[in-house]
This record gives sequence, structure tokens and C-alpha cells, in this order.
Amino acid sequence: MLLKKNISIVYFLKLIKWDVMAITLYSIMVGTLDHFAFFNDIDIPLSVSALVGTLLSLLLAFRTSQSYERWWEARNIWGAIVNDSRSLIRQLIHFLPNDDMKTQYIQSFAIRQYTWCYALTEGLRKVPASDKVDSYFKALGADSDNRPNLLLTKHAEAMAEITDHYQLDPNRQVQIDNTIVKLTDAMGKCERIKNTVFPRSYSVMIHFLIYVLMTILPFGLEDNHYIVEIMVATLVPVLFIAIERTAILMQDPFENKPTDTPMSSLSATIERNLTEMAELPAHPKPAEAGTFYVM
Amino acid sequence: MLLKKNISIVYFLKLIKWDVMAITLYSIMVGTLDHFAFFNDIDIPLSVSALVGTLLSLLLAFRTSQSYERWWEARNIWGAIVNDSRSLIRQLIHFLPNDDMKTQYIQSFAIRQYTWCYALTEGLRKVPASDKVDSYFKALGADSDNRPNLLLTKHAEAMAEITDHYQLDPNRQVQIDNTIVKLTDAMGKCERIKNTVFPRSYSVMIHFLIYVLMTILPFGLEDNHYIVEIMVATLVPVLFIAIERTAILMQDPFENKPTDTPMSSLSATIERNLTEMAELPAHPKPAEAGTFYVM
Amino acid sequence: MLLKKNISIVYFLKLIKWDVMAITLYSIMVGTLDHFAFFNDIDIPLSVSALVGTLLSLLLAFRTSQSYERWWEARNIWGAIVNDSRSLIRQLIHFLPNDDMKTQYIQSFAIRQYTWCYALTEGLRKVPASDKVDSYFKALGADSDNRPNLLLTKHAEAMAEITDHYQLDPNRQVQIDNTIVKLTDAMGKCERIKNTVFPRSYSVMIHFLIYVLMTILPFGLEDNHYIVEIMVATLVPVLFIAIERTAILMQDPFENKPTDTPMSSLSATIERNLTEMAELPAHPKPAEAGTFYVM
Amino acid sequence: MLLKKNISIVYFLKLIKWDVMAITLYSIMVGTLDHFAFFNDIDIPLSVSALVGTLLSLLLAFRTSQSYERWWEARNIWGAIVNDSRSLIRQLIHFLPNDDMKTQYIQSFAIRQYTWCYALTEGLRKVPASDKVDSYFKALGADSDNRPNLLLTKHAEAMAEITDHYQLDPNRQVQIDNTIVKLTDAMGKCERIKNTVFPRSYSVMIHFLIYVLMTILPFGLEDNHYIVEIMVATLVPVLFIAIERTAILMQDPFENKPTDTPMSSLSATIERNLTEMAELPAHPKPAEAGTFYVM
Amino acid sequence: MLLKKNISIVYFLKLIKWDVMAITLYSIMVGTLDHFAFFNDIDIPLSVSALVGTLLSLLLAFRTSQSYERWWEARNIWGAIVNDSRSLIRQLIHFLPNDDMKTQYIQSFAIRQYTWCYALTEGLRKVPASDKVDSYFKALGADSDNRPNLLLTKHAEAMAEITDHYQLDPNRQVQIDNTIVKLTDAMGKCERIKNTVFPRSYSVMIHFLIYVLMTILPFGLEDNHYIVEIMVATLVPVLFIAIERTAILMQDPFENKPTDTPMSSLSATIERNLTEMAELPAHPKPAEAGTFYVM
Repeated sequence: MLLKKNISIVYFLKLIKWDVMAITLYSIMVGTLDHFAFFNDIDIPLSVSALVGTLLSLLLAFRTSQSYERWWEARNIWGAIVNDSRSLIRQLIHFLPNDDMKTQYIQSFAIRQYTWCYALTEGLRKVPASDKVDSYFKALGADSDNRPNLLLTKHAEAMAEITDHYQLDPNRQVQIDNTIVKLTDAMGKCERIKNTVFPRSYSVMIHFLIYVLMTILPFGLEDNHYIVEIMVATLVPVLFIAIERTAILMQDPFENKPTDTPMSSLSATIERNLTEMAELPAHPKPAEAGTFYVM
Repeated sequence: MLLKKNISIVYFLKLIKWDVMAITLYSIMVGTLDHFAFFNDIDIPLSVSALVGTLLSLLLAFRTSQSYERWWEARNIWGAIVNDSRSLIRQLIHFLPNDDMKTQYIQSFAIRQYTWCYALTEGLRKVPASDKVDSYFKALGADSDNRPNLLLTKHAEAMAEITDHYQLDPNRQVQIDNTIVKLTDAMGKCERIKNTVFPRSYSVMIHFLIYVLMTILPFGLEDNHYIVEIMVATLVPVLFIAIERTAILMQDPFENKPTDTPMSSLSATIERNLTEMAELPAHPKPAEAGTFYVM
Repeated sequence: MLLKKNISIVYFLKLIKWDVMAITLYSIMVGTLDHFAFFNDIDIPLSVSALVGTLLSLLLAFRTSQSYERWWEARNIWGAIVNDSRSLIRQLIHFLPNDDMKTQYIQSFAIRQYTWCYALTEGLRKVPASDKVDSYFKALGADSDNRPNLLLTKHAEAMAEITDHYQLDPNRQVQIDNTIVKLTDAMGKCERIKNTVFPRSYSVMIHFLIYVLMTILPFGLEDNHYIVEIMVATLVPVLFIAIERTAILMQDPFENKPTDTPMSSLSATIERNLTEMAELPAHPKPAEAGTFYVM
Repeated sequence: MLLKKNISIVYFLKLIKWDVMAITLYSIMVGTLDHFAFFNDIDIPLSVSALVGTLLSLLLAFRTSQSYERWWEARNIWGAIVNDSRSLIRQLIHFLPNDDMKTQYIQSFAIRQYTWCYALTEGLRKVPASDKVDSYFKALGADSDNRPNLLLTKHAEAMAEITDHYQLDPNRQVQIDNTIVKLTDAMGKCERIKNTVFPRSYSVMIHFLIYVLMTILPFGLEDNHYIVEIMVATLVPVLFIAIERTAILMQDPFENKPTDTPMSSLSATIERNLTEMAELPAHPKPAEAGTFYVM
Repeated sequence: MLLKKNISIVYFLKLIKWDVMAITLYSIMVGTLDHFAFFNDIDIPLSVSALVGTLLSLLLAFRTSQSYERWWEARNIWGAIVNDSRSLIRQLIHFLPNDDMKTQYIQSFAIRQYTWCYALTEGLRKVPASDKVDSYFKALGADSDNRPNLLLTKHAEAMAEITDHYQLDPNRQVQIDNTIVKLTDAMGKCERIKNTVFPRSYSVMIHFLIYVLMTILPFGLEDNHYIVEIMVATLVPVLFIAIERTAILMQDPFENKPTDTPMSSLSATIERNLTEMAELPAHPKPAEAGTFYVM
């Protein structure tokens, strides 16, 4: 997640540099040709460009809106993960009778739960597993392609054991199962966003429209100022490209980029909360923020 | 689902070729007539075309947005199917007491559940049943027009048997019934999207507006460059047609086309997850992706 | 629901014929006057018409979108009715112990449930009750102004009897009550859509704007071609009227019109599914589709 | 709720008369000045007005859409109140064992429930309490600033008594509590809509933009026809004002105005349904509709 | 929340004064240069400005809409907090058997619950804790970085004690746990809105577009009236800036500003309701409203 304090313009410019260069070159070329013989005659009214521009603006508004939805949904899912993690531990505090094992059970759930958050983060971002997660799975003596799914199954197995140990009332067991179902849903929703490519046809269409606009726009501008004409003919398509890139940046929130959902940071928050609630010793410090973003 | 790596432009062009040809012919005809006697006089200001174009753009934005909603809803439903399939098996692991039969029960549920996914896929796409599904129903000795519905009833019957066998607490039984209700809902939602034609009147209206725009646009362009006029008069309506076709492509996500929800692939993922969770032997390989899409 | 195969253009034209005639007459009148003395001087720039046109387009986009929402919500509610009807019978199969009465109980629920669907359809469409429904109520020996509500109460009474007969666990009873609550909600939502007029003020406003546009548009067109001017001055307002009518068509989905939610057809599907699940003898044939729509 | 049959144009015109007069005066003033010395020179291109007009149209579209959402949400909440009122009584029928007290309990719940509807209506509209409600609270011998909240507490106390009387299973008690929770939510949602002013800053901004448009528009119109210029310069801002007023009318649905959610009428429907279900003697007649609206 | 009666225009003007000054200076500079040599020649058609303006208007409409969504979601969350606070106390009244301790338990829950509301308000606004909250935590003898989370854990511990004391049926315990889960969710949602910066890239993009528009607009205006040109060239960008600021004002509803969600006032309402329901002595007076807003 990008922070308020500081934004790296450089970071953004890097993203669109190739498009900017291509558009500039094209504008210079057309601008130059436009002063010669044949092309000089061609005149495509600005109204036609405006018509294409309106259509393109509406598609970009749609695109922007959908990207934002995906980004916001991702943030909502992780908000729900924070809530459900806290509720899970709180329900154990609430439902388990006081005996020697209670603290131990709660602590093992708390550790498994925040490890789940880290494992999910790493799985979605396709980065190598951290030491924390790797050592957990080593100690567990089991592994899977889909580590978060395995951990949820371990939650279920531990709950089966706890139910057996305390002769826990089925109502309470089912209530905790509800929380595990919610975590399963959150995991599945993350996978859905991660694995669903934004419809290619829309992207291609918007790109094509930008190129069309870039092509016809110079023929509608008057030819008295060579430099100004080229600047305008470059500027307008670059604006559209820039907005499209902004949308592309937001639409994939689990890609290990500065615009990601801050999963590492949220996982650390969850770890802090759960260790406090379960009275575990180690309270980790807040994740360090990057210069202009937090992961 | 179309993939990022590669898009078949050819595939898309095939979809709009007839419209493109018709529009081109018409533009040539009008462009030619426009240079003769009577038609030369007719002048419909570009502002009128712009007015129609704005209206059309807004309707297309609405259309695009609704198609996207349908496509995204279909994807969400299948995301929920993934989650509920996992939760179903996890709940059985969680709730059934350990005895000789437990593994067997869980495995039969896992097989029935992923068969349900395949049967639903095939039913929605109206393709012939695969061997996997056909042999399951042969072994079952029962069949129905609506196979997925029958399988859910079999889930319920098996749950009744399990409840009887283990004297399962009604709370737990009801919790699993909740998951079956969710699967019933997902199935019904897929049928709803499949069977509900996007309102014909909107499609007809948009088509009609495109033809109107195509008709009046050439009369607003100046007549000095025959070729350019024809190109512009062809290009603009083709853009609108192309966007409408993109919307049509997205709006029906269960039609056995490259833009489908990747149900086969998701079903295979479910099969892989459930066989692992239920400790079944056969882990199928991921479904092979097409050159530029995954089904 | 209109089908894909065939659309009755005639049906649609009938809906807008009076508006078209009025607009045409007005355009001819203004177009004629415009060539005489006083009116000839009046010139309202097309930009003003464009401004009004943009505002009107945005309101129509809003209108179109809200009508679609209503139509889609109605379809969703009936999709939920399909799901909940199936779940209701499946839950009875799942929860009732096997004894002599089980089949009989399930069958009476199945019949009551699909009769509820037909009664709801007829109540919403305000058509005379079919024989199927009438004979059911005759046999029941009770009646009400709100027949579907009475049938749901009968469901509740039957459940009370079943609970008594089998000493059914309250958990299971409550789970079935949940399904009855969902059916109550669906019924209430249908009534809400049926009884809530789309805000009159918006309709009046849009109509008024169309008349304003119709009035000022001809004064912006140039006067060299009498016929063309009249055609354009007629065409543009007709397009707006046509879109508004399309929206009006969609917004009331329970009016016994070809654009209705296909409630009869969905009720028949439910009847088919439930009779199969409850092992009742009579499987009705699918409802016959009209030439270009299905009810 | 305004009805279809009849709309009072007069009612609407009264709402905007001051704005219309102010705008007309201003237009006449500017139109007159525009023909003299200094002002005659000033020319603000119509494109600038169009730019402001587009921005304003989009903000009005947003405003219209949000007002509609509020109105529709209010209608949905009251739809849910209808459903939950019916479900509450149905659940009592379903869950209470047959004994001498059952009918009496159900009837007292039915009366308290429809009184709750009337009390909520009166509280939201800030109108004096009706006799029906006042006499109920007199008989109850208790009162509160927030009468509906008190009645829900009475529901809860009565449920506690019923649970005690019948030794009602906690499952059933909890299921009815769910319905009371839903009624609490509906009440809170109504209060939220009632107490939340639509953001002032947006209203001020839209008003300001309309005044800006009104100011610059006359300078873009040509000066050949004094009357026409004034008419156009008046008409366009009035259209925008009228649309804004329409939005303002919809956004506050609990203000005792003709555009209100028809709470009195829905409460009467609930009373009719509940008295029938609870076999109470008095079936009230439908609320009388106003000439062009129903409250 | 800003109130209807009164709006501080001064407050708003302060927010945009720097932008207004910068834009005015720039317009004067360009307006002056435009009358000299080189710049006089440059002409960027108004259509290009209109194209940029349309794009910008659509992005601002999107921005406005998303800010409103955040503000409305925040208001909804606090509406849910009101409802769930009432339901929590009502459920205790409903579920706890009558004995000496009941009133005491309910009162301690009521106090803890409204303290939670105040603590959440103060935590979100990052203001120093009030005496009411501080003294509560002093008496409690425990503290945490996340005070609301600690209070919810105390709710859970108190429920565990109550369950033990009354041998409360697990169904009822789970039902109250549901309400605590909802409060956990509401808290987490507030934290999500508080901690999620609105995507920086959109803000930067909109700002950049406004500057582009400001730069090209003067070159499209005709040069006959120096003052009018400067006024128009200043006015239009200021309108866009003002709308963007309005959106920024709404998007962060927990910042201790006049446009905040009125959390203090809602907390006081909750305190009043709960003290009445729990029959506690002190009924606090309504929070005093500011001159033009309520916090």
C-alpha cells in the first residue's frame, strides 16, 4: 500500500516510459508529415476525436472502477482475516473450561493462526517462505502444496481433539467451525482474485482505442505551431495511458509490489494481537515501512 | 478464461467480421454517393452524431459493466464452490468420531463432491458427460436429468446414514447441512446465469443506435478526402461494435468458449485438494491450459 | 423473459407509436415554420442541445441501470426460490427418520411448496388462479387474501406436527424454519418490487427533458434540407423515448407481459424437481415457450 | 410514495418556484445588459459552459443515484420489517406447544408487533402519536423516549416468560431472538437514514456549479433574439435545479411528505396479516390513499 | 457530520485557498503573456480542453462516488454498532435467569459496552482518552495498546463467568458470542477504513489532470477581454479542485474533523439507551452540537 507522506514519481514514470516514448515518436512523425504534401490535406475533425475520447473515457472510468473494486475487495478480505483471527482466539477463551491445558491449546491456535497469515501472504505473493513459516512446518512434520489449506485442516484436527478432551458442547464446536469456514472463504477469495486475470478483451480494446485516438488526433489540430501541436498530440494519449496503468497497478493486489494489499504488515498486527490475547511471550515489533509504501 | 500471455486476435476478429464488412460497404457507398448531386447537399452536423455517440457510449458503458458483473458473479460462485467443497470435507474430518468407517465415509464424500463439480460443469456447458462422471453414475445405479441435484440428494442421504451410524449430534448435522444448502445455492445461481438471457431489448436498442450513428456520421464529415472519410466513417462504428461484442463475450460465462469461467480447471483443483484432504490415492495433474486460454 | 431466437419488433413499435407520431408531427410543424419569417431567425446553438442531451443521457443511463437492477433482483429472488424449494425437500429427506409416514410427509410438503410457487406467480401477476391452485385450496378447506402467506403458515403447522410426531430435535426443526424464513423473505421481496412504483418524479423529469430537447433541437439544425432536418429532428428524440420505454419495460417484472420474470416456467421447473425428489408420480412437461418469449 | 395514476405538477412547481424566479430575473438582467456597451463585448465560448455542464451533469447523476439508493434502502428496510413481522408470528405458531395460553401469547405478540410498526413510523416522522399507540402504552404502564426500542425489550421479556412457561428449548428461543435482532437492526437502519444528513458539501458544490453555469451561459449565446436568449438562459439552469430538487425529495424518505416510504400503509398491511395469522377479531381496512400518493 | 442548518463557507475556503491562489497567479501570468509575441500565436482548441475535461469529470465522479462509499460505510458500521450494542443488552435480559446477580451482570455489560464505544472513538480519532475511559481502565487494572480489543476480551471472559454461574445453555452463549463477533467485525472495519489510504496513484493522477487542464485552457480562450479570460481560466480549474477537496473531506471519516462520522454523539446515544435498558441511574444529556456540525 502506498503511503500518504511520499510518492515515488520515478516509480510511476518507469511504468509508462515505453509508451510515452512510442507516442512521442509517433506524434513527431505525424506532426512532421502533416506539414508536407499529401498529409497536409487530411483533416479529421476534432469532434471525431472527441467522440472516440468520450467512449474511451467511459471505458476507462469503468476500468478504474473495477480495479478499485478488486483492490478494495482484497483489502476487505484481509480486514475480515484480522477480525476472524481475533474472534477465533476470543472464542477459545470464551468456550474452553479453565484447566491446565487451556492456555496451551489457545497458544498453539494463536501460533498456527498467525503462521497461516504469513503462509497465505507468501503463497499469494509467490515469494520464498520465511524462516518463521518454514520452521513451523519443519516442526509440524508435514507439508503441502497449499500450506494455508493444510493449516486450516490442522485447526480442524486440533478442534476435534479439544472437543474430545473437554467433551465440548457441539454448539460451541460448531460456532468455532463457523470461524474456520470464514477463514476458508477468505483464503478462497484471495486465490480467486490472484488467479483471475482481468478480462483480456477489455484491456486489448482500451489499448486499441488509445492507439486510434493517438492516430486521428493530430489530424484535427491546426498546423501553425509545430511544437505545440506535437506536445498536445503527445500529452493527451499519454494521459489516457497513464490512467490505464494506474488501473492496472491496482487490479492485482497480491503481486509483491508497492501497491499490494499490506499483507505482511497486517499479518504482523495479527501476530501482535494474538500473542497478547494468548499471553504468549514474544510481541514482535511493527513491520518496518518502506520509504513510500508498506507491504 | 483468457490468459495474460497470449491473445488470439484472430479469434476476436472472426467474431466481428460480418459487421465490419457490412459497415465498410455502407461507408464506401455513402462516401461515393456523397460526392454526387443530391447527397452532396445533405449535411448533418457532427454535433448530432456526437449527441448520439454520447448516448451510445453511456449505454455501452452500462452494457459493459453488466456483462462484467455477470462474468464476475459466475467467477465468485465458482470461488464459493471451491471454498464450500473444502469446508465440507474439513467439517467431516472435524465432526466424525474416529472409527474404521471414518476414512471411507470421507472418501466417498470427496469423490461425490468432485464428481458433482464435473457434472455441474458439463451440465452448464451442455457438453457430453465425461467418462469420469458417466462411470460414477453407472456405479451409482441411478440417474436424473439434473445430475448435480441428484448428487446433492445423495449427499443428504449419506449424511442421514452417517448421523444414524455415529448418533451424530444434530448441531453438527445441521452445520454440514448448511454447507449442502450453500452448494444448492451455488448450483441454482449458475443455472440462473445460464438460463437468463441478457435483456433482448437493450441489445436491440444498442444495435439500432450503432446503425443510426453509422448512417448519419458520414454526412457530417467534410468531403475533401474520399479515402479518409470512408476510413473514419468505417472506423468509428466498428469501435462501437467491437466493444459491444466484447460485452457479449463476457456475459455468458458457461458456453464452452475460451472466455468461459474456467470450470474444468477449478474442478480439477477441487479434485486435487479433496483427494489430498481425504487421503485418496490418485492426485490428478493440473488441467492442461489451451494456447491462450484455460477452460 | 424475451428469448434470443426471435424478437417481435412489432411488439416494441406498438409501445412507442403514439410518441413517435407526436414527435414527427411536431418536427414537421417546426421544420415548416422554420422557413418562414419570424422563426427563421431563431437560432439555438447545437451546443445547448448537446448540453441538454448529455444531462438526459446520464439520467437515462441511471434509469436504465435501475430498471435493470429491479429486473435482475426479481430474477435473483426467483432463483433463490428455486434453491430454497429444493433445499426444503432435501432437508426433510435428510432430517426425518425412516418410517411409514416419511414419504407421505415429504410428498405433502413438495405439493404444498410447488403450489406456493404457482399461487405466488398468480398473485403477483393478478391473473385468475389456475385449476391446480384452486383445487388445492378447495381440498385444503381454507383460503386467504394472501394465499402464499397462508401456505407458509401451513408449512409451519405441518412442521409443528412433524416435530411432534418424530420428537424431532429442535436443531433440525430450526434449520427447516430457516428455510421457511427465506421463503417468507422471497415472497416479501416480490411484493415490494410489485408494489413500489419507480419514483414518479424521475419519470416526469426525463419525459420533460425529452420534450425540451425536441423543442430546441430543430432550431440548431441548418435549414438547407427540409426533409433531412425533419428526419434528424424526429430521430433523435425518438431514440431517447425508445430507451426510456425499454427501461420502463424492464422495471416491472411481474406484470404478465413478455418481459416478465419467467415465473410460470420456473414454477414448472420446481414442480418437476420436487416431484422427482419426493418420488411423486406426475412429472409435468416443461412449460411451452411463446414464439419469442417464455413466461 | 407517489402513485402512478396522478401526479401533482403543482406540488412540484411549488418546490422550485423561488429558484425559477431568481434565475429568470438574473437572465433578464444579463440579457438586457448584454445589449449594452461593455457587456456586449464579453464572450465566454459555449464550450466552457459545456465543460461546466458535463461536470455538473456527472455530479447530478451521482447525486440522483445516491438519493435513489437511500430511498430504495428505506423501502427495503420496511420490506424486511414486513417479512420479519410475519416470520415472528409464524415462528411462535411453529414453536409453541399447543395449550390454553398459546393463542393468548401469540395475540399479545401480534398486537405488540404491529404497534411497534406504528410507533416506529410516528417516531421517524416526528408526528404526534396516534390513539392506537398511545392507548397501548397507557395500558402497558411504561414509556420511553425511544418507544420502539422499549417494545422490543418487551418482546424479549415476554419471550423470557414464554421460555420459562413452556420450558422452551434454547434452540427455538435463539431462533426467535434472531428475528428480534433483525427487527432491532431494521429500527437502527431507519434511525441512521433519518439522522444522517446527505453530505452538505456536495449539495453546496452542486448549487454553486449551477450558479456558475447560470452566470456564464448567457455570454455564450448569440445576441440576435432577445427573448429566445433569455428563455434558453433560464431554461437550462432550471432543468438542473429541477433535477437536484428531485434528488433532494427522494433522499429523506421519513419526513411526512408525499414522497415518503409508505410506512403507514405498510404498517396497516402488517396489522392485517398479523391479525389474520393470530386469529384476532379486528381486520382493519386498507389505509386510504391520498389523491396522488400513499403514506 | 455537517448539519443542515448552517455551513461554514469559511471552513471550506480555508481548505482550498492555496490552490486558488496558485491557479489565479498562473492564469494572470498566462493571460498576460498571451498578449505578447510568441504566446499570442499558440492556440490549443477548446475541444482538446473539453476532452481532458470530460476525462477529468469522469475520474472525479468516480472519486466522489468512492469517497461517499467510504463515508457511508463508516456511517453504516456505526449504525451496526448502535444496533449490536442494544441487541447485546437485550439478549442478556432475554437469556439470563432472574436472580440477584442478573441486574449487576447486565449493568457491568452495559457500562463496558458504552465504554468500548468511547474507547473506539478515541482510538480512531487518535485523541487523548477521556476521563470516563481512563477511569474505567484504572478501575479495571489492565490496559492494552488496542483498548477496544481488550474490552471485547473482557466481554468474553465475563460471558464465560456468566455461563459458569448460571449453567447457561450453550445455544444462548453462542448467540451472545455472535453479537460479540459482530462487534469485533465492526471494530476491524473501522480500523480498515482508518488505516487504508485512498490509492495515492488516483489522487496524483487527478491532480495532474487538473494542472494539465489549467495549462491548456487559457490558450483556447479568445483574447479580446483580458479580465474575463483570466476569470474563466481561474474559475474552471478551481471548480475541479473544489470538487476534489470535497471528496477528500469525505473519504477519511475518523479524523477528528467536522465532517467525521458523529461517533461521540452516537456513543452518547448508545450510553443513554443502555443505561435505560440496564436501569442504571445516570442518563447523560445529548452531546452538544457544534455551531455547524456534530462530532
